[in-house]
Amino acid sequence: MSLNPKRTVAELKELRALTSDESGAQRVAWTDTWLKARDWYAKKLAELPVEHHYDAAGNNWATLRGASEKCLLIGGHLDSVPNGGWLDGALNVVAGLEVLRRFASEFNGRPPVTVRLVDWADEEGARFGRSLLGSSAFAGTHTIAADRGRTDRDGVRMEDALRRCGVEIDLFPQAEKERKNAAAYLELHIEQGPVLEKLNLPLGVVLGTKGVERHIIVFTGQEAHSGSTPMDARRDALAAAAKLALDIRAIARKHPDAVCTMGSVKTFPGIATAVVGRCEATLDQRDLNAAILSQMFQEAQAASHRFALEEKCTVKWSRLWNIEPVPFHPALLDLCEKAVRETAGTSHGMPSGPLHDAAEVSRSGIPTVMMFVQSLQGISHNKIEDTKEEHLEMSVAALDRLATKTVDWILRRA
Amino acid sequence: MSLNPKRTVAELKELRALTSDESGAQRVAWTDTWLKARDWYAKKLAELPVEHHYDAAGNNWATLRGASEKCLLIGGHLDSVPNGGWLDGALNVVAGLEVLRRFASEFNGRPPVTVRLVDWADEEGARFGRSLLGSSAFAGTHTIAADRGRTDRDGVRMEDALRRCGVEIDLFPQAEKERKNAAAYLELHIEQGPVLEKLNLPLGVVLGTKGVERHIIVFTGQEAHSGSTPMDARRDALAAAAKLALDIRAIARKHPDAVCTMGSVKTFPGIATAVVGRCEATLDQRDLNAAILSQMFQEAQAASHRFALEEKCTVKWSRLWNIEPVPFHPALLDLCEKAVRETAGTSHGMPSGPLHDAAEVSRSGIPTVMMFVQSLQGISHNKIEDTKEEHLEMSVAALDRLATKTVDWILRRA
Repeated sequence: MSLNPKRTVAELKELRALTSDESGAQRVAWTDTWLKARDWYAKKLAELPVEHHYDAAGNNWATLRGASEKCLLIGGHLDSVPNGGWLDGALNVVAGLEVLRRFASEFNGRPPVTVRLVDWADEEGARFGRSLLGSSAFAGTHTIAADRGRTDRDGVRMEDALRRCGVEIDLFPQAEKERKNAAAYLELHIEQGPVLEKLNLPLGVVLGTKGVERHIIVFTGQEAHSGSTPMDARRDALAAAAKLALDIRAIARKHPDAVCTMGSVKTFPGIATAVVGRCEATLDQRDLNAAILSQMFQEAQAASHRFALEEKCTVKWSRLWNIEPVPFHPALLDLCEKAVRETAGTSHGMPSGPLHDAAEVSRSGIPTVMMFVQSLQGISHNKIEDTKEEHLEMSVAALDRLATKTVDWILRRA
Repeated sequence: MSLNPKRTVAELKELRALTSDESGAQRVAWTDTWLKARDWYAKKLAELPVEHHYDAAGNNWATLRGASEKCLLIGGHLDSVPNGGWLDGALNVVAGLEVLRRFASEFNGRPPVTVRLVDWADEEGARFGRSLLGSSAFAGTHTIAADRGRTDRDGVRMEDALRRCGVEIDLFPQAEKERKNAAAYLELHIEQGPVLEKLNLPLGVVLGTKGVERHIIVFTGQEAHSGSTPMDARRDALAAAAKLALDIRAIARKHPDAVCTMGSVKTFPGIATAVVGRCEATLDQRDLNAAILSQMFQEAQAASHRFALEEKCTVKWSRLWNIEPVPFHPALLDLCEKAVRETAGTSHGMPSGPLHDAAEVSRSGIPTVMMFVQSLQGISHNKIEDTKEEHLEMSVAALDRLATKTVDWILRRA
């Protein structure tokens, strides 16, 4: 049985029908709809000569034993954001399933190396605000303590929601043993941005995931009556934030792939009739180059202090989260470039702005690479998220080519 | 018994002790604490030879019959915002009470004209979002239909809350009969702004209340992933709003007393990891000159369309509320100027940015003027709202002088 990329598209539609409503995909991790998606996937695996188990962090492993204990890992995630798209995370798993089938069929159930397909638990962090949960447990970068206090919007404790799915946070470190014999990790993903569509390319090679600096910036001025406070007597916290919202764009534009985003602004008291006394803004900065990221961070801080001074406000930064850039493995980048070129005729290298489980896997020392397939309109995390079917099919073929090349590479290395 | 301004300060402290908690004044209209304030006030009135009743809109009238049926009205409001200050509205009533006492005493209970003190119902609109409620019913500018759907934060219907206090919205128009024989209206108020303090003046003459244009402005761009969307591919609704937040300041500064305020900004989806797809901002513009107000409104609209275009967004305006400027009566302005000068040695004319019941009274055709007393730090609607006691005492004396001059003016006019 040879690779059948059309089946991947059909299976993605099956999954969509099963786990979406009129607002989009609802496969939020640790919910019944997510468990339903995993059951659907388990039935598909049951037709293959694979061992199937969940690790201590809820990651979902299918293992096709090979002649060598060395493992090729292919990964994705069935979980989605609420009202999400049909492809984000699911394409990776379902395409990986097709590649697994091809390996099982071509080598009579025993490929030259062990091939493992992983469906990571809670990549999105949509319910409890902690993304890359399962892959960070695998990578050993997860800290249990930080999750103790997490609750969802309804006040359900993260610990309890996981327990309901058979997962104990305290046992997370045991997921690290899945790293044993891992020789390479591959992940296919939709781009979730507009770059490939703009270049009219179906596929791209992901050079790495950008580092992120994510902060809350609070400007404090003086709440005052909008009618009685002359313009020159104001200490308007919104004005300082507005200046920063505009300035971060100039800071980003000095560098070709860098991005800076103010995604949230909250005003207090936040009524039409009061000058803003306090303004809370978020800043998210990303680049693949650590030096550029650091420079942008410093420039934004300096600008915020300048604007605070101009507006007679004070400013305070607090880090929400950060991660260093994760460049992917040079040899695998080379193989990915070849697989994309053989499939699409031409290839393009680009950093990933969004984070992926691949970043956690790579940080744990396993050679890693990702491949992007074009997203229509660059839109994701939304029910209109889409990719042309011909491109989806090409992506399955390219992932399969990359897997074959990587198996060869693992064997050569051994 | 002569005027005793120190008693006014003592009575304001009494009222504060009775109706405040550690967060400030809690005399929100239609609540038990407000009714408690009105009971306290009713006991004070009971010592005077006045007729006391509530009109159909809940306004609280004390009438000292004079030789003439022509009425001098003095007004204020006992209601406060939640966590409010001790002076806003209450000073007006309690100072008016002292003036009423002086008239009753000096003329043996029968002054040359009828003197009426009114405690307006629900000036602040803090609970149901409709300010100047009682005074607009008096002025005939209130529309009942708009209040049908109002509820407070707990879902209590405005109609039911008023009924509990003995007031039926349907009967509001009957409050208009209180206008009969009204010859002049005087209102003392704290400035609620920093102007008099900056000028080191205790008292000011209020030239009128500024007109207001209040709008919601919605910029719509495209929500996009903060990591995957290059800077030049963005349609950032926050950027357009930020440009407007800064530009309205230049629009206001062309005119000496004009103000423009963006008091609320809301971002959607409003998360750190998404470019803002929709940004809702409020704009509040005020000036005493109708032509200037209209010019500022047009300039802000033009600017918003320019910024929307620059950021590849669309923009939509919707009016929240507006009111024309209300200049006060020239003859009463002149009397007020004299009363302030005689009391404080010097006088200063200024528009009021905040609205007051006086604006509604003036719109109904009754000659009106207001007097301001200095606010410390320009802060109001807050428990730290304050005014020096010596300035409070001067304000009672000045209001009393103005009342005497106004009685003379009414008699001369008759």
